[in-house]
Amino acid sequence: MPSISHKAGAMPASPIRKLVPFAEAAKKRGTKIYHLNIGQPDIETPASFINAVKNADIKVLEYSHSAGNESYRKKLCNYYKEYNINIDQNEVIITCGGSEAIEIAMMTCFNAGDEIIIPEPFYANYNGFSMAANVKVVPIRSYIETGFALPPIADFEKMITPKTKGIMICNPGNPTGYLYSKEELLALRDLVKKHDLFLLSDEVYREFCYDGKEYVSVMHLEGIEQNVVLLDSISKRYSACGARIGAMISKNKEVMTAALKFAQARLSPPSYGQIGAEAALDTPKSYFDEVKTEYIARRNFVIEELNKIDGVYCPKPSGAFYCIAKLPIDNADKFCQWLLEDFNFNNQTVMLAPATGFYSSPGAGIDEVRIAYILNLSDLKNAMECLCEALKVYPGKTN
Amino acid sequence: MPSISHKAGAMPASPIRKLVPFAEAAKKRGTKIYHLNIGQPDIETPASFINAVKNADIKVLEYSHSAGNESYRKKLCNYYKEYNINIDQNEVIITCGGSEAIEIAMMTCFNAGDEIIIPEPFYANYNGFSMAANVKVVPIRSYIETGFALPPIADFEKMITPKTKGIMICNPGNPTGYLYSKEELLALRDLVKKHDLFLLSDEVYREFCYDGKEYVSVMHLEGIEQNVVLLDSISKRYSACGARIGAMISKNKEVMTAALKFAQARLSPPSYGQIGAEAALDTPKSYFDEVKTEYIARRNFVIEELNKIDGVYCPKPSGAFYCIAKLPIDNADKFCQWLLEDFNFNNQTVMLAPATGFYSSPGAGIDEVRIAYILNLSDLKNAMECLCEALKVYPGKTN
Repeated sequence: MPSISHKAGAMPASPIRKLVPFAEAAKKRGTKIYHLNIGQPDIETPASFINAVKNADIKVLEYSHSAGNESYRKKLCNYYKEYNINIDQNEVIITCGGSEAIEIAMMTCFNAGDEIIIPEPFYANYNGFSMAANVKVVPIRSYIETGFALPPIADFEKMITPKTKGIMICNPGNPTGYLYSKEELLALRDLVKKHDLFLLSDEVYREFCYDGKEYVSVMHLEGIEQNVVLLDSISKRYSACGARIGAMISKNKEVMTAALKFAQARLSPPSYGQIGAEAALDTPKSYFDEVKTEYIARRNFVIEELNKIDGVYCPKPSGAFYCIAKLPIDNADKFCQWLLEDFNFNNQTVMLAPATGFYSSPGAGIDEVRIAYILNLSDLKNAMECLCEALKVYPGKTN
Repeated sequence: MPSISHKAGAMPASPIRKLVPFAEAAKKRGTKIYHLNIGQPDIETPASFINAVKNADIKVLEYSHSAGNESYRKKLCNYYKEYNINIDQNEVIITCGGSEAIEIAMMTCFNAGDEIIIPEPFYANYNGFSMAANVKVVPIRSYIETGFALPPIADFEKMITPKTKGIMICNPGNPTGYLYSKEELLALRDLVKKHDLFLLSDEVYREFCYDGKEYVSVMHLEGIEQNVVLLDSISKRYSACGARIGAMISKNKEVMTAALKFAQARLSPPSYGQIGAEAALDTPKSYFDEVKTEYIARRNFVIEELNKIDGVYCPKPSGAFYCIAKLPIDNADKFCQWLLEDFNFNNQTVMLAPATGFYSSPGAGIDEVRIAYILNLSDLKNAMECLCEALKVYPGKTN
């Protein structure tokens, strides 16, 4: 029997995936689980998206252009213009979800053995794509005490080696919900420019910025236009995760020409998703206003409830729909498993994501969990009650 | 400006892609082009597929399971059973097209620097995925004189080095249309077993086998169940290229466990495509009978017409919807460009794929073209007439 590749063997199983069998067992026992562990919103996909797919008059479901339908790319440029991101249709490749945008960007920008610095905690799947591209992720720690602000530039400087080829950020952040300030991004720009690095930025949550705070894109940063690659997805914007439509964007022609070759090798992005996504560009502003109002209410509730619990600390995030909370527990992996395996409150429990899966540094995030506030307020209320009760009786409690 | 990765820089532009600007210019001049250069069938997608998508009652377009919807995987196993391929739903991962199946299989099975032997001419995009996985493709030549039969096992033996980790085939073949016989596959099995290699087999054209010849899958080969990875797609089966639904299948648990981690990193395959593909499993046999009858008529016509032309040789393929023809020309790349740039017959011309793009060995296929017989008979008649006239006046004619 031939052996699998080293990288396939070394791919870590995510701490969330490890919990799935315990969740299934709990469900079988009749326990209701509030899923705050994943970024699957409960918000309805806009009618414009769903109806465009329903009404599409397709006889032969053909390949699209490898970079995506031109009509979609052109219209998408207008969407970006509203965010002061000025690109033309040749500077965007439509991808199979944000995932493929990350994958193609990494393949395009980095050689095997190159290093890429990523502030941690970070979206766990960056690890998978880095491994696939044989790129080494160098984590740089951000801390809950500062709300997961950008680590000091001096810390980045310490991490830079001759192998450092890029920096990757997520803004607004998953899993932290942190929204980088203009000052932070300008400092990052200077660093990127100084060392001539690629700056990859995952900005799929731009619709979800709160408290009047300004969303600054890496595409706004002057002087590093050739270094910047924007990674995007419609999954969260239109609550259309299953469409698998994302985008890779750059003003660097060499990058886009090479990326297109990878895109051509896989032929085309999904046709139905593109049809829906193009139509969804006409989604009225009122849809987003409503969604945002809903998320703000959820966030405010969750943060307030969390911080009420003795020994819990959770900074208030300004973006996305996640927060990371520090709990008075010995071990988040154990605690999250215990919630599913050994605990219930009125036959209900809550599923959380242990933050350890979002850190690369060993031991980091051991007493932290990520909470996705993607359920309605009534469910969130029950979920928070479960968590509160659980922390009263968890055997590994530390305070 | 940071430099792109070596592999991105080294990705060859396909000879077909290079022709696109010339095709566009010809269209602008008002020349009608018969596209025999791509595998985009003109056959209608089954109504069951289209209607399932139209009628899907979706409120929130959610992520599916990373391995694909369980209902689809279960039903798909019944489809394979009809071909005597016996698998369960845990031995299949639904992918974003056959492309992603190839990509994940390569990432899972091969380390950077490993060698994989592939009979040439082969589907050009195997190069892209090999490059992405840093795997070295070792081509082994098959010849038009034998109709592109499997090269002798002794030739394979000569290519095997300590770095050889797998063999990859396409059966029925793109671009050759060749259908491997049971004897050929048994010989390959013995070789795979002897050297304990992975055997990856792309069998997306199994519905298109002609002349009563038997389709033998690598999944039928006894004694190498742990070595075999089947790569599949619904693109051609249901003429649903834009759905982006494929599958990676293996009975090797270690392979599937690792492959699932790559699948989890990219979250899920497209939802709409899965809905259509699941419904299309009920496509009546009459649909395939009609399609097959149509392709056989097209093939017979094209092969007959080609071989009528002075100096042209084209073996009759038993599968898929491609053939490779040897033409009396100096250079297929030049000829295909000339067809678009300098030639027209009654304001019509034909676009072909230079076979050079399907060979890795330098100079191979220089006087060969791939013809996809994916147009209706009336268009094929005009296209063959164009080709015949073109060969009378092409300046680089060799006979």
